[in-house]
Amino acid sequence: MSKNLFTLLCLTLLLSCNKQNKDVSKGDYYQRNGKVKNVIFVIGDGMGPQQLSMLQLFAKHAKKDYFDNRVTNLEKLMAQGNLASVMTNPGKHLVVDSSCSATQYSTGEYSLPEVVGLDYNGESSKTILELAKEKGLRTGLVSDTRLTHATPASYAAHNISRNDENAIAKEMIETGADVMLSGGLRYFIPKNAQEDVELRNLVPKHISLKSKRVDNLNLLEVASNKNYQLVFDKSSLLKSERGKLLGLFENSSMPDGIWNTTNKDKADRVIPTLSEMAKVALKNLEGSKEGFFLMIEPGQIDWAGHRNDTGLLLHEMLRADDLFGVLNEWMKGREDTLLVVTADHETGGFGFSYSGYNVLTPLKVSGEKFNGNDYRANYNYGDFDTLDTLYLQSKSTMELMLEVSKWKEEKRTTENLKKFFSSHMKYEFSDEDIAMLMKSSKNQFYRPDHKNLKLKEVPHIEDFAAFYTYGNIVRSNIFARVLAHKQSAVWATGSHTSTPVTMITVGPKSLTSEFGGLLHSTQVGRKTIEALGLKKEYKTKIK
Amino acid sequence: MSKNLFTLLCLTLLLSCNKQNKDVSKGDYYQRNGKVKNVIFVIGDGMGPQQLSMLQLFAKHAKKDYFDNRVTNLEKLMAQGNLASVMTNPGKHLVVDSSCSATQYSTGEYSLPEVVGLDYNGESSKTILELAKEKGLRTGLVSDTRLTHATPASYAAHNISRNDENAIAKEMIETGADVMLSGGLRYFIPKNAQEDVELRNLVPKHISLKSKRVDNLNLLEVASNKNYQLVFDKSSLLKSERGKLLGLFENSSMPDGIWNTTNKDKADRVIPTLSEMAKVALKNLEGSKEGFFLMIEPGQIDWAGHRNDTGLLLHEMLRADDLFGVLNEWMKGREDTLLVVTADHETGGFGFSYSGYNVLTPLKVSGEKFNGNDYRANYNYGDFDTLDTLYLQSKSTMELMLEVSKWKEEKRTTENLKKFFSSHMKYEFSDEDIAMLMKSSKNQFYRPDHKNLKLKEVPHIEDFAAFYTYGNIVRSNIFARVLAHKQSAVWATGSHTSTPVTMITVGPKSLTSEFGGLLHSTQVGRKTIEALGLKKEYKTKIK
Repeated sequence: MSKNLFTLLCLTLLLSCNKQNKDVSKGDYYQRNGKVKNVIFVIGDGMGPQQLSMLQLFAKHAKKDYFDNRVTNLEKLMAQGNLASVMTNPGKHLVVDSSCSATQYSTGEYSLPEVVGLDYNGESSKTILELAKEKGLRTGLVSDTRLTHATPASYAAHNISRNDENAIAKEMIETGADVMLSGGLRYFIPKNAQEDVELRNLVPKHISLKSKRVDNLNLLEVASNKNYQLVFDKSSLLKSERGKLLGLFENSSMPDGIWNTTNKDKADRVIPTLSEMAKVALKNLEGSKEGFFLMIEPGQIDWAGHRNDTGLLLHEMLRADDLFGVLNEWMKGREDTLLVVTADHETGGFGFSYSGYNVLTPLKVSGEKFNGNDYRANYNYGDFDTLDTLYLQSKSTMELMLEVSKWKEEKRTTENLKKFFSSHMKYEFSDEDIAMLMKSSKNQFYRPDHKNLKLKEVPHIEDFAAFYTYGNIVRSNIFARVLAHKQSAVWATGSHTSTPVTMITVGPKSLTSEFGGLLHSTQVGRKTIEALGLKKEYKTKIK
Repeated sequence: MSKNLFTLLCLTLLLSCNKQNKDVSKGDYYQRNGKVKNVIFVIGDGMGPQQLSMLQLFAKHAKKDYFDNRVTNLEKLMAQGNLASVMTNPGKHLVVDSSCSATQYSTGEYSLPEVVGLDYNGESSKTILELAKEKGLRTGLVSDTRLTHATPASYAAHNISRNDENAIAKEMIETGADVMLSGGLRYFIPKNAQEDVELRNLVPKHISLKSKRVDNLNLLEVASNKNYQLVFDKSSLLKSERGKLLGLFENSSMPDGIWNTTNKDKADRVIPTLSEMAKVALKNLEGSKEGFFLMIEPGQIDWAGHRNDTGLLLHEMLRADDLFGVLNEWMKGREDTLLVVTADHETGGFGFSYSGYNVLTPLKVSGEKFNGNDYRANYNYGDFDTLDTLYLQSKSTMELMLEVSKWKEEKRTTENLKKFFSSHMKYEFSDEDIAMLMKSSKNQFYRPDHKNLKLKEVPHIEDFAAFYTYGNIVRSNIFARVLAHKQSAVWATGSHTSTPVTMITVGPKSLTSEFGGLLHSTQVGRKTIEALGLKKEYKTKIK
């Protein structure tokens, strides 16, 4: 063999060997760069595993296939991602609220219930959005609640109370996330906005200008001076250009999930859907060299939970699944982005459940073991029809009760109420149902100085009454009790539960593998900050 | 450069290159063999994500560290494994019971509530245990309930009713899993067992010989003739030899989680713990050439859930965590085994939750944002002390009520009841609490022919009454309502919920990666059968 041949052989071997080495060392985007370019962080407010089961059961077993071959976007997301179970408790309490939970995700520090952007010692703590902005990344916040509400607020404000939405609005404009899309105009317009002709010309007529501010601050003007494009409806949102963008599409909160189901395909709709807001935000933020951080909140799952409104919960989950579809689409072929889909806590303690109501519906079963006999179970394990009936609910129970509260006394007869409720949900109501629904009693937890406990008389709830503290909204919780056995659905509370939430991460495998197992929300916060290559020193010690 | 040097260089390159190739093609045990040798399948009965949160909160935040550095075995298991979320609904109903759920896991077919080992057409379907046995694998069943109870039964019997425990016992001996350890002696001894001197000599005195059989079948004799070693207490269990082993350690169900906490470290204990049974089963089954299938059930988490007994739930989860410790230990360094830890459903709709009770406990906070003011939240988010208090509960609420029911009428005064309850759980009880606890009312769901609905008068439950159908056990559910605001704990139902359960798989990565995302229990069943290299044709189509 000639020396040249040897050399050739060696080189060939060397090359093929190197190629393999390179393949191994190359790795995925995260391995190559030590960080990802973009993070999309989705917080389903109140979206515990319980809520996910509603979506899955509906997709798989409703009579009609509302999906493509009965496969949800959630399922597709889960199939490509890594799963973790996340504890969301505060550092000094058993149960968390939305602002504390979002703060733990945004800052990586233990926080306190009802505070915004503070650690549990009451110190301001920089959020991932602020850290990203400092490093030149673009940033965004999208929510179908309102912009100053607990979850988005906890990414761009620092306040001892989530209820101080005036200060929060001001601070959020100062923090200046590039894209902010939600409801909540009332905190951004001066107290005399209703008399302001210029404002009335700027904001489309379907949005009320009733302000909640106590000052004359016009935050729209402030934002405009900071080069924000201002948009207030679907068409202006869709026409918006890349660059700073503030969209406020309702006076207070955006419409609910039933509205979303009913209106999302209507061409003349003026209010954008959550999915449309998410698409615009992604289009606006993507493509910059430095990357972006975007938080998106399907926020009203929580509200359906607080009110124990089973039908509304289904529609809120359908809205969330639409969003998951947008995200699946956007993530296709990406390797530079980490997508996190999680929740801040579970709300309501929801479940389908089996009961002793109507137990003896026999089922024909062909199998040899039954020998011609019908199958009869000892309990009612819930019919799939229930899913289709839930879908038909055309108004939330809170709205129904709100309408009734506006009726004149003489109209509020049992017969009228039965007819009215049955026209919006496909159930028969008995006299006892109506009596139970309309009953009030003395507020055992009365506090004159408390936002929600200040009513002397409240809708009558019997069991676990201490957990139903949202005043007249409790009428909706009673509705759940009237419907429970008809819907095979139960609820544990009018507030939140400690259920660990299911977190899905999609992105470079070397990174998502770090987001597995049983984590605490503060750990998720820290890992996400790190994933973007951002640096932070932490003050609280995670247990 | 000399020719020899070149040759040497080439060979070196070639070798190092080949070594890499080999490493890549080698893969893990599953990749090399297309199956694993052993499967350990753990079903936490009623162990939803909600129940996991109880364990985690207790470990991290109780005043005392009951763990090693506050790290649970569950957490360690999750850290090394892959997570999935599993829907467990039957093929024709929204909510599942334990036998249907275990059948879906064991057969990979949709099943019906309350049947055992049948598909939803009522046809017998071979279980993974039976398939494994046919292929020469060794097999085992371990449960801390009783052997003929829904979960173990669904691996080794086929019956139209889970309640037919006499027939199930007979069939389980016929199926002949190598190792069976649990309670439930009463289905294995002839109806006249109490008069049988030989039996009394065989079975230790602490176990009653009251039979539930209606025939004279002595299944212990049958088992003995099939070469089973028979053991009835801890010491004989620990001394048992490799080979067929039947252990029945109680007349009916094994003792509860509070017993486990109190007694597990006692040297003179005669009843084995779940962990001890699991260890013996593993030691017995391991080492055979063909491998094994073993199902282990921490089964009484479900019972704490049905009764809404928050303190008992904690102790049941502690017992489960002991088991996870045994499994972590056993799995160390193994590469030939798939460990699945999952649940059949969630029971009770448990959650810690925030309330309007006792809201104004201020907290000293140093942070600059509070400017010297105390922190006061609008709700009671639950103190960590609650966890320590739960731990101190020394009897289940069902046992407490059972004791009271045996008291003479005149002893049952409010004062005596208060004192009695306070001596077993560290709470004060008011007159109203006692009145609520003792109230009974007409059974709205009365059915004279029904196992549990046959009582005309039942403990009075107000809301969601249709979901509390277990007769006098409901007194325990009312206990939960009395304690709820003191414990910051809520419950949604006396039965099961549709919550997807969290599944952890540990083993070869190439295999566990197949057990991710959102799955249905039937899919898990099929994947597990496949993991052992077993073949089965399926009759039901999974949606």
